[in-house]
Amino acid sequence: MEQPFIVKPGESISLIGEKKSRSSNHNPDNTGSYNKKDDTKKPLKKLHKELLELQEILYAENKHALLIILQGMDTCGKDGTIRKVMAGINVQGCEVVNFKAPTVDELSRDYLWRVHKSVPPKGKIGIFNRSHYEDVLVVRVHDLVPKSVWKKRYQQINDFERMLVENGTVILKFFLNISKDEQKERLESRINTPSKHWKVNEADFHERTYWDDYMQAYEVVLEKCSTEWAPWYIIPANKKWYRDLVITERIVKTLQDLKMKFPEPNTDVSKLTIV
Amino acid sequence: MEQPFIVKPGESISLIGEKKSRSSNHNPDNTGSYNKKDDTKKPLKKLHKELLELQEILYAENKHALLIILQGMDTCGKDGTIRKVMAGINVQGCEVVNFKAPTVDELSRDYLWRVHKSVPPKGKIGIFNRSHYEDVLVVRVHDLVPKSVWKKRYQQINDFERMLVENGTVILKFFLNISKDEQKERLESRINTPSKHWKVNEADFHERTYWDDYMQAYEVVLEKCSTEWAPWYIIPANKKWYRDLVITERIVKTLQDLKMKFPEPNTDVSKLTIV
Repeated sequence: MEQPFIVKPGESISLIGEKKSRSSNHNPDNTGSYNKKDDTKKPLKKLHKELLELQEILYAENKHALLIILQGMDTCGKDGTIRKVMAGINVQGCEVVNFKAPTVDELSRDYLWRVHKSVPPKGKIGIFNRSHYEDVLVVRVHDLVPKSVWKKRYQQINDFERMLVENGTVILKFFLNISKDEQKERLESRINTPSKHWKVNEADFHERTYWDDYMQAYEVVLEKCSTEWAPWYIIPANKKWYRDLVITERIVKTLQDLKMKFPEPNTDVSKLTIV
Repeated sequence: MEQPFIVKPGESISLIGEKKSRSSNHNPDNTGSYNKKDDTKKPLKKLHKELLELQEILYAENKHALLIILQGMDTCGKDGTIRKVMAGINVQGCEVVNFKAPTVDELSRDYLWRVHKSVPPKGKIGIFNRSHYEDVLVVRVHDLVPKSVWKKRYQQINDFERMLVENGTVILKFFLNISKDEQKERLESRINTPSKHWKVNEADFHERTYWDDYMQAYEVVLEKCSTEWAPWYIIPANKKWYRDLVITERIVKTLQDLKMKFPEPNTDVSKLTIV
């Protein structure tokens, strides 16, 4: 099993500066013991088979929900991760929620209101593509609410997530860690590939100018909100194939650790007759 | 391309009686020009590849939603159809809604309220596992509301579906047609296979005693609610592999017929600079 890339509660995280990231587990280029994509195909296929089996027991047992939170900079691969990690999953047991800029209706409630409405039910896997963490990321970087408001949110988020966990939801939080250079290459590739032009969003190019501010905001999130009940994982994401392997592995391991069982039938099967 | 199994508007449908079903297109044992599961693997794989590509254009173009409605008797394979037909789909672009017995909150509104809330947004595929058709099926069979109420619903449903279609939703309705004997075999298999015991639901065994009543209710649905804008298809479903092939084929063909295109970028890509 690969190293889990978990952030220990209160661990100090440095995402800025070449040296710091290279000297730690949090090097975006990390590919563990794998050298190339082909080497991961076989283990990934095995993991996908296990995931499908575990998903069926999750549904049958109906005791836990699994909530997967994906965060990261533009082009970090949130969409690709969902497509690749969940390839072959039973769509009926999986819900993806894409949190965009909040609507007027959502802004007139607290920031966790729309999030709470969207948590997965027992038996299912829910994926948040972005999440309530935007309320201490983009909101902090662009001063969308006063500091006195957002600085209380780290604790609020920890409390909210603990409540979810205590009531049967398992939470996995993945920060897809790409380097600034890798983002540049990916944006250039979108510009230079006509078939990717529909994905081009001018705002992404503007947001890039706030790279260091975002990294600082992410460092605080990772330091304050990686808890025993809902840990953050920093996923090396420059190499998409390694990112997919690490995340799939973590999801499978997490579901295995639940020691789930198919439930007993609620009827005495031997007494049923078919007319 | 296999015959489409479409129900023409107003067509008279007979689902009861061996002779009637065998003499028509609506024989549950029909496997078209295929003799065995292995023969369908290659075409199904090709269709899945096409479906994934079409799904991306559906999302990118953001002009249409696709709503797939699945109905049929217990054990007819609604869950299996979703798992097999949608295998390999991008889960982020697909929503499955499982309509169960309505809650108190839902019962205090009209029967289409919860359905309307659950329609897929543009760019996505939505699958209804059961639907508003239960409100003229189980409701009719068990007299859950007076005839004066349910008899108006066929027209209401046609009107509601037309409104959806006129506003960008494409609707496909599949009746998974199994025979009463096939249901017996499937229920027996659940009883005789310990690993399937968790799926055993006593209510399914009871509902089977109303088989003919359900078939009559389905005949009326198929006759009254197969419209030009939202047709019903009667899918031969005794052989699961043929059912999956026919449905996947129909979905792919429907998406192809939309002649979708990747949209133009909303920015002048040549003018973007990356800092």
